[in-house]
Amino acid sequence: MKNIGSIPIHAVTALDKSGQPCTVLVANENPLTVFMDNHKIVTLMTLGTYPEALAIGYLRNQKLVETWQTIKSIHINTENETIEVHTAQAVEPNKMAPGMIKTGCGQGISFNIHQLPNIELPPLEISQTLIYTLLETLTQQNEIHRQAGSVHSCALCQAENILAFVEDVGRHNAVDTIAGLMWLNNWTGEDKIFYTTGRLTSEIVMKVAHLGIPILLSRSGITYKSIEIAQKIGMTLIAHAKGQRFLVFNGEVKSMPK
Amino acid sequence: MKNIGSIPIHAVTALDKSGQPCTVLVANENPLTVFMDNHKIVTLMTLGTYPEALAIGYLRNQKLVETWQTIKSIHINTENETIEVHTAQAVEPNKMAPGMIKTGCGQGISFNIHQLPNIELPPLEISQTLIYTLLETLTQQNEIHRQAGSVHSCALCQAENILAFVEDVGRHNAVDTIAGLMWLNNWTGEDKIFYTTGRLTSEIVMKVAHLGIPILLSRSGITYKSIEIAQKIGMTLIAHAKGQRFLVFNGEVKSMPK
Repeated sequence: MKNIGSIPIHAVTALDKSGQPCTVLVANENPLTVFMDNHKIVTLMTLGTYPEALAIGYLRNQKLVETWQTIKSIHINTENETIEVHTAQAVEPNKMAPGMIKTGCGQGISFNIHQLPNIELPPLEISQTLIYTLLETLTQQNEIHRQAGSVHSCALCQAENILAFVEDVGRHNAVDTIAGLMWLNNWTGEDKIFYTTGRLTSEIVMKVAHLGIPILLSRSGITYKSIEIAQKIGMTLIAHAKGQRFLVFNGEVKSMPK
Repeated sequence: MKNIGSIPIHAVTALDKSGQPCTVLVANENPLTVFMDNHKIVTLMTLGTYPEALAIGYLRNQKLVETWQTIKSIHINTENETIEVHTAQAVEPNKMAPGMIKTGCGQGISFNIHQLPNIELPPLEISQTLIYTLLETLTQQNEIHRQAGSVHSCALCQAENILAFVEDVGRHNAVDTIAGLMWLNNWTGEDKIFYTTGRLTSEIVMKVAHLGIPILLSRSGITYKSIEIAQKIGMTLIAHAKGQRFLVFNGEVKSMPK
């Protein structure tokens, strides 16, 4: 993958409404084919900045790898745009239930919507002041989006600290990359806040729930199913969070004293 | 599916930044499990307004059904949120290549990015005036988005006429639904313009190319890979199209006389 690790932006020439050429920055989008124990699992289209974390996080969120300790080795091949993950698992991916590898964006869900897992998230407090602080800090980090647009961001926050900030062409890629970084850095979820620029659809809520993170904050909107799931598992859901505005759809936010 | 066919919006109570309750409209998101010839193919999370077209379009875009004539019957079961498609195909889904059913949003692509199909799109002219007319008309149609947000829209246009307008919680669902409507209505692609509010990532470009549609117009941004693909197959790519602005990344748009 020629652009892995490099700045994932190209300058291209577009024509404006008057037919005049202008230079526009656009985000990279490259294939990354993930192999697990010599079986081809998936080809992801990605910005390419965190291939290792994306591959691990994808396998984690698809429940193809149970624990971080199961992973024996990870090898990135930049020439043929592949990443090979070797595990100590007994079950090989091709022996798993057919159709198990399914994915988000309303395009095949990876969990059973009728059987919510027995997740009960730990309580974690969040205040209006902390939301404002996080939004302010996060705005300064979305470098690719500012330059080229067409990417979504996710962040993993612990109180006012941004532990990880990831931009990618797909909102699910960004979530999966955070999941991978959590394993790579041995971060647990119970005291974290998950931020995304993407909409809070059911699969994003479920992925964040499986990471054990009790607070989910989004710049965008929300679906009804997400609220239903959050109510069941005790997740604080904050959407439309931008500047000095936000809406709390489940849980509570400590207001500033008047 | 309780909400199929009904208005896919719920009124919920959220708390604003001061902790005051307010009523907010949010979009539905319900599972739709697609069966083909008694095999479970996928569970899609959808707004639920076009279940038939979504299921057919999904099977079409995943190349699980080759032609519209192959489909013998479609049965929607609203109780258990399933749709059953029966075909006259010899190949059963479980006999297909493993891992074949993959999906978008940068989360597993359904085509081989290294082997672009031998598509050469027919030429189709578009003018600045037509773009403005379409954008103006399309703005009046996004009813769910205006009320509840959190949905993407796609439209199929023929000159200044909007043949179909679809909103859904996932941008891929909306594209797939248009693909289904094209089969249901016997519409071909060569004289059509495809509009989406979503970003022009490689998989959207490929899906529209496979529908035989030569012009792709987006309200949002674009990736580098999309431009590369469009250049190869001769697709006119127009992004950032909003109000009186747009940028042409491949092909050309006839400007208004000065």
